[in-house]
Amino acid sequence: MDIATTADKIKRGDRRSLARAITLVESTRAQDRAAAADLLAHLGTENQALRIGLSGTPGVGKSTFIERFGMMLTGQGMRVAVLAVDPSSTRSGGSILGDKTRMDLLSRDPNAFIRPSPSQTQLGGVARRTREAIALCEAANFDIVLVETVGVGQSETAVAEMSDLFLLLLAPAGGDELQGVKRGIMETCDMILVNKADGDLKLQAMRTCADYSSALHLMRKRPQDPDDFPKAVAVSALEDDGIGAAWDEMQTLAAWRKDSGIWDARRTQQSRFWFHEEVRAGLLSQLTSDSAVKAQLRMLEDDVTAGKIRPAHAAETLISKFFARSG
Amino acid sequence: MDIATTADKIKRGDRRSLARAITLVESTRAQDRAAAADLLAHLGTENQALRIGLSGTPGVGKSTFIERFGMMLTGQGMRVAVLAVDPSSTRSGGSILGDKTRMDLLSRDPNAFIRPSPSQTQLGGVARRTREAIALCEAANFDIVLVETVGVGQSETAVAEMSDLFLLLLAPAGGDELQGVKRGIMETCDMILVNKADGDLKLQAMRTCADYSSALHLMRKRPQDPDDFPKAVAVSALEDDGIGAAWDEMQTLAAWRKDSGIWDARRTQQSRFWFHEEVRAGLLSQLTSDSAVKAQLRMLEDDVTAGKIRPAHAAETLISKFFARSG
Repeated sequence: MDIATTADKIKRGDRRSLARAITLVESTRAQDRAAAADLLAHLGTENQALRIGLSGTPGVGKSTFIERFGMMLTGQGMRVAVLAVDPSSTRSGGSILGDKTRMDLLSRDPNAFIRPSPSQTQLGGVARRTREAIALCEAANFDIVLVETVGVGQSETAVAEMSDLFLLLLAPAGGDELQGVKRGIMETCDMILVNKADGDLKLQAMRTCADYSSALHLMRKRPQDPDDFPKAVAVSALEDDGIGAAWDEMQTLAAWRKDSGIWDARRTQQSRFWFHEEVRAGLLSQLTSDSAVKAQLRMLEDDVTAGKIRPAHAAETLISKFFARSG
Repeated sequence: MDIATTADKIKRGDRRSLARAITLVESTRAQDRAAAADLLAHLGTENQALRIGLSGTPGVGKSTFIERFGMMLTGQGMRVAVLAVDPSSTRSGGSILGDKTRMDLLSRDPNAFIRPSPSQTQLGGVARRTREAIALCEAANFDIVLVETVGVGQSETAVAEMSDLFLLLLAPAGGDELQGVKRGIMETCDMILVNKADGDLKLQAMRTCADYSSALHLMRKRPQDPDDFPKAVAVSALEDDGIGAAWDEMQTLAAWRKDSGIWDARRTQQSRFWFHEEVRAGLLSQLTSDSAVKAQLRMLEDDVTAGKIRPAHAAETLISKFFARSG
């Protein structure tokens, strides 16, 4: 792959080049990593899309929502990229978009680009790869980059840390606790969308929406929120209802953050966050790349969990050994 | 300090030896670190207290609550240690117990031990030091170790990760959002105590309590909670009302977790967590102990936040430099 030519093609909107470049950043081979870094440096950072993170458990209607939302945006003349973060090592049945056929219309729209998540991934790598894929889509002049996650483990936090707006898609609650939102997520989410506000579930969706609104209001106001945010709104992806109103809310929030300087501050903070994360991950990967040290790490972990040695002492032992070997 | 003798004195309940040992684990000097490790190894891990974490913002009545709660426990024949985690670098006026006079009765109780938090601390060190102070108090046969924090930044998470039960003390809310709970904390807290349920504020405290109960019920059930938990209860530290009932709830929860095996699983998970944290922190401290590498870290961070270089690339650059120098 000629880097300069590929960079040029991506900037001019060539979809095959974009797809190949995403495959390149997904690779863990050292040679590919170097080429990916080179390509990203060539592309620069001038173009910036609106980065929207979307989390929701399987069955909540994510694919249908993204299809409707995406079609609405392309209908307004925007170019939309959809990326998926799926930290599970093997793809589970109904989990995520992997399958483009679940977004049939959007996948055939020339102004949309859908990239399924690759199988067999590790979380650390997922975060870096997804951030690099976002950068590629921005270089390719997409207006909106939508990153979806199933919200397992730390993937929600990771996606929130790479989004300008982070949305949570929920189904109407069947009862008191039947489909409660995971608590930590309330800290990071900017808007709750209660889907399936249609047919028999409509009233229930409205009530769920009111419940989450009150819950959100009970919580401490964050500096990144104007009055009334974060808020919960009801939508029906199935009947294409309320999605325009939800988009209006997103734009209101985005405009407020841009005016108040919070937008830029957030991106700066996110870059710093990922830099420190990458340094930590890089150091740890150096440590575990030494098989003798890695074996000792496992032994010490067993001793720690068995209460035979204290965590701090075990860590000091391990690190001394590592630097004695690498020094 | 003779380690074996000191260990022996601590086990026999000598308060001065305990106090000096805590000063030792607070020290960052290499020689003291080695002595502290030696002492902790001598003391073993046989005795385990009930570790209660308590978070609450200044003004919520933490000192009064701890005084009443502590006196009740010592009145029942228990020995109670109170430790403070204050990650702020300089002590702020009304922040925390630093001042033993705020817990006048408890500080004079022979079955209680109050250790103010030292000034000038860094968070990483705070967590290790506090865990080691807990270990010292356990070796000294305290039944309850209460760790309080003002809940600034990550200190709440750190305290939650070293507690068997983690409590949040709140004041009655004055209005919709006036004193909302920080969202992330709902993920980790086992019980909310709404203080100041007395005089003019009594009704308001009851309402706040009901509000938080509903909010907690809207959220997803955690495997570490029996039915009805986490719950919100109203107390008055001032009038010494409801504290016995709150203690009953804590005991119910503790007993359930012990029976279900969650208690042990949680301690094992916490040890593993702190081991990995210590390894990460240790690696990072090796990196920043090289002044040339540290200077480059700062430069690269500036470039990252200015958008001149991507986080992953900057991290790779830094780590290569570090291992080239240390290798």
